[in-house]
Amino acid sequence: MKRVLLAHGDGGLYAAALIKDLFLRHFRHAELGRLSDAALLSPVDGRLAVTTDSFVVQPPFFPGGDIGKLSVCGTVNDLLAGGAQPLYLAVSFILEEGLLLDELEAVVVSLADTARSCGVEVVAGDTKVVPRGQADKLYITTTGIGRADERLLLGAEHVRPGDAVILSGTAGDHGIAVLSCRTGVSFQTQVVSDCAPLNGLIYAISPYFSSLRWLRDPTRGGVGATLNELAERAVLDIVLEEKSLPVRPEVRAAAELLGLDPLYLPNEGKMILVAKQEAAAEVCLALREHPLGREAEIIGHLERGTGSVWLRTVLGGTRGVEMPAGLPLPRIC
Amino acid sequence: MKRVLLAHGDGGLYAAALIKDLFLRHFRHAELGRLSDAALLSPVDGRLAVTTDSFVVQPPFFPGGDIGKLSVCGTVNDLLAGGAQPLYLAVSFILEEGLLLDELEAVVVSLADTARSCGVEVVAGDTKVVPRGQADKLYITTTGIGRADERLLLGAEHVRPGDAVILSGTAGDHGIAVLSCRTGVSFQTQVVSDCAPLNGLIYAISPYFSSLRWLRDPTRGGVGATLNELAERAVLDIVLEEKSLPVRPEVRAAAELLGLDPLYLPNEGKMILVAKQEAAAEVCLALREHPLGREAEIIGHLERGTGSVWLRTVLGGTRGVEMPAGLPLPRIC
Repeated sequence: MKRVLLAHGDGGLYAAALIKDLFLRHFRHAELGRLSDAALLSPVDGRLAVTTDSFVVQPPFFPGGDIGKLSVCGTVNDLLAGGAQPLYLAVSFILEEGLLLDELEAVVVSLADTARSCGVEVVAGDTKVVPRGQADKLYITTTGIGRADERLLLGAEHVRPGDAVILSGTAGDHGIAVLSCRTGVSFQTQVVSDCAPLNGLIYAISPYFSSLRWLRDPTRGGVGATLNELAERAVLDIVLEEKSLPVRPEVRAAAELLGLDPLYLPNEGKMILVAKQEAAAEVCLALREHPLGREAEIIGHLERGTGSVWLRTVLGGTRGVEMPAGLPLPRIC
Repeated sequence: MKRVLLAHGDGGLYAAALIKDLFLRHFRHAELGRLSDAALLSPVDGRLAVTTDSFVVQPPFFPGGDIGKLSVCGTVNDLLAGGAQPLYLAVSFILEEGLLLDELEAVVVSLADTARSCGVEVVAGDTKVVPRGQADKLYITTTGIGRADERLLLGAEHVRPGDAVILSGTAGDHGIAVLSCRTGVSFQTQVVSDCAPLNGLIYAISPYFSSLRWLRDPTRGGVGATLNELAERAVLDIVLEEKSLPVRPEVRAAAELLGLDPLYLPNEGKMILVAKQEAAAEVCLALREHPLGREAEIIGHLERGTGSVWLRTVLGGTRGVEMPAGLPLPRIC
């Protein structure tokens, strides 16, 4: 079994071989082949969108995905949430000495396939190797570059009382999928991560772009943290309906077992959309037409207030949904 | 002494506080303040240049710099080497649980100051926290975005026999500066890293842009590996003159002590320039007018050949300068 050596990171023969035999075989943009210090790309017509994220998920392979797929989805979805069309990715690897080259290749293949599947090009890359014990297998940082879609005017400042909050599908799948690999607890039904690039889903609702006010993919901190950020910035309250919140029964069961609230579990293939009230039902139906939006629901609405999030429970009560502090979920994405 | 907690990476209250109290205080681009998933930037006029690099230098503070400064210099210099004007940076941190917040702040301040000093804006960022023992203090990934300078037509395919190879200053300073912190050997004179953003130096020679054929900052693998890459791609030989290679006496002495060749030591504030023979002397003089190019030298030239690098030694002999394989220099940048 061949493994990553420190020499793969030293800029010499081994590093050159890794680039040629692995990276260039799976990433095929002409600018990568030039092996220049920077990729030169056609002019982007319009405002530029930029986002960056490091991925440190443990374990790197989990039901429904792996760190390679995740590092594309997370960054592509951030560009979409920022109101942009994803175009390019830059990818940087930090590898632990001793990582199996087969594992690295599996991640690279998955990353390349996911990028290709959503029409995004990997145009720049880097690899560093750190000695054993100074990383855990591998970390990936992806930076996404896109073109702002001028039909989307998004931001907390555009949100109004009465606007509807839509969730594009079930909450918490990614969190439970990753945790299920760690706890050693086997659940009756395997939960699969929702990890997916959402450009198809978002383009599918482009006729409704003028009705959208705010988009965000609820990753770390889940729906709960994400909506608290919005409420605080908009200085409005958000009222959620527990009965409308889509959660898979197996996710609910696993979350209960682990003492976690699905509202705070991370998602990697979901979008929260705030839409004008009058268009919300149509937006929701349009989302459901797409395979990644089948379980979309209007989960709540905005109200005048001071920046809090509330949940109307199935039992008829109302409880606050606080900003989480100290969730015990390291390395979930 | 306050330290980084796992909770600083969970997307909740602690993460929000870190962003507000640390990152937004030092990085002040308006798009960061929006806390959106993606920064939206004015259209870039012309072809886009993109580069990405992870920085894992150990120790994170060394004479002449730190990982924050380094992560700006490395990426800015890569954009310049790619023939572009650096404009924007995206910065992603992977932090080890337990890192002192004071150390993190020192790095962030240094990163912000360096970016400001060279006119580059930090427009996007991310922070992940991994448990103790799964990183070594902190790693930073920077992605640089620039505008291609159409006056520069660079690439191995443009290099011709007879072209001159210019090095903008002394070789090996960064490598020895970092190694001197590790070995426990104290040298008589402290060697300081050359770590610097080179846009000022490159703009200073803009009247000669049409005479330049190839640029590269010789970081990992040093001048030796960098020129081997060029020779191989151009299918030409490169002949270096040992007597012309600028090396500080204290770097030479330390390298000898450590059994290392300055030709393979990394640099973080140097550029190799291949220029047309007839313009080389003028380019070299123009470089020397700039504070970061005072010790620029023509160190060799291109010849017909099969892609090898040769060194004419001070004793009159000639030896091959091979592509290094297995340099014992992990985490040097």
